[in-house]
Amino acid sequence: MITSTSNPQVKNIMLLLKKSRARYQQQLYAVEGIRMFREAPEDLIDRIYVSESFLKTEAHRKELEGHTFEVLSDPVFLRVSDTKTPQGILCLMKMPDYSLESFLKEPGGLWLILENIQDPGNLGTMFRTGEGAGIRGIIMDEHTADIYNPKTIRSTMGAVYRVPFFVTGDLAETIRHLKDHQIRVYAAHLEGSVFYDEPDYRRGTAFLIGNEGNGLTEPIAAAADSYVKIPMGGQLESLNAAMAAGILMYEANRQRRR
Amino acid sequence: MITSTSNPQVKNIMLLLKKSRARYQQQLYAVEGIRMFREAPEDLIDRIYVSESFLKTEAHRKELEGHTFEVLSDPVFLRVSDTKTPQGILCLMKMPDYSLESFLKEPGGLWLILENIQDPGNLGTMFRTGEGAGIRGIIMDEHTADIYNPKTIRSTMGAVYRVPFFVTGDLAETIRHLKDHQIRVYAAHLEGSVFYDEPDYRRGTAFLIGNEGNGLTEPIAAAADSYVKIPMGGQLESLNAAMAAGILMYEANRQRRR
Repeated sequence: MITSTSNPQVKNIMLLLKKSRARYQQQLYAVEGIRMFREAPEDLIDRIYVSESFLKTEAHRKELEGHTFEVLSDPVFLRVSDTKTPQGILCLMKMPDYSLESFLKEPGGLWLILENIQDPGNLGTMFRTGEGAGIRGIIMDEHTADIYNPKTIRSTMGAVYRVPFFVTGDLAETIRHLKDHQIRVYAAHLEGSVFYDEPDYRRGTAFLIGNEGNGLTEPIAAAADSYVKIPMGGQLESLNAAMAAGILMYEANRQRRR
Repeated sequence: MITSTSNPQVKNIMLLLKKSRARYQQQLYAVEGIRMFREAPEDLIDRIYVSESFLKTEAHRKELEGHTFEVLSDPVFLRVSDTKTPQGILCLMKMPDYSLESFLKEPGGLWLILENIQDPGNLGTMFRTGEGAGIRGIIMDEHTADIYNPKTIRSTMGAVYRVPFFVTGDLAETIRHLKDHQIRVYAAHLEGSVFYDEPDYRRGTAFLIGNEGNGLTEPIAAAADSYVKIPMGGQLESLNAAMAAGILMYEANRQRRR
């Protein structure tokens, strides 16, 4: 059992929870809680850490059968954890390696493209809602929040394991690439000339969503095929970015169910 | 200028930001930022506080013309503020007094009914999205987070001023009352027998949304006319509560635009 926070493994978990750079250098990220352990793809689990009191429960020991794991003393686990009331289990996960090309081979998919989304909670909610709406994947620019941030992970509710994603250094180029694969790109934009429920989303479709405060930059919005807007009553200037994405994705889902 | 945090006014602002009970006793709540000042209904502003440096900007002084206000030294304003980087303006607002009866007199409205929503950000987002979707009002039970919590206020993006709301001690009774006024009540429920886009929401409609973790309680769900479900792909158990509410409200908005 590890009883000291100066243990190198413990220090590394804390580093992986805090520092994005360390995560990418090691190609590892940390997830917390029993659900995130249960839903984790077996082949991507690198290491499992549990707290002393977690192990005291018979059901927990049963769930761990067939796995190797390290035990941390309760005070050490509490220090390590990113949550206020830790559940006592944390996994280090290998980062998945998705190939955009292989996903683009199958036509007709539904995609989300994100430019400079800053709030980890918003990003996680888009993964969660995207899984629900049946999207094929999420494409993000380099300025979007880190999907492996613990807050983002938490708000995906496990969708981080199941919704493929791709980070691109050249978003405009990637958008052109999608268009070459017969995917129509719709920018969510206040200056949209049509309401979001007017186009036909049953063919290959991508929704382009911009930063929470400033929306899409001019060059990225210009790369879209067309602008769509969500009608807004009252004096509201905009919807929350994750909400806008959710409403668009579920409109596509609705059309595809007919 | 107020330069001490032990000034009684300063202490009262901090109390109003922190304690729900103090807000209801005084029938006052605090809002922060220039937008919340600009959008505030004139007759409900009780008091305005600005920071020393806020006043240094000519444009700010212009906006304050015709208003009386108190000045706080910068360090005192920073202490008082609920935000990390305060904008330097805070208003105490009188609580509005909406009468459910008067709103029920006009038929055909769209409503949101909330049971035990715990996350202030979710609650605020429902107000914001509700304003966008054109709802007539939000009905909440006593267990739902306080609409006057500073976090909730922030995430409403001003909708707290414009979307009427009602807190009820007997949610089942209030639901019956809505039904007596020809409002059909649809519970968002995983066991819904129809998808949410099947019913006709162009008549009086209310969506009933339950707690983030546990959904609706059995007696409240039973009070609804019917259950609707949002289809979910993947392995997802549920959507975020605010997202579910937004998807339902915008489906009603879509139908009403046809």
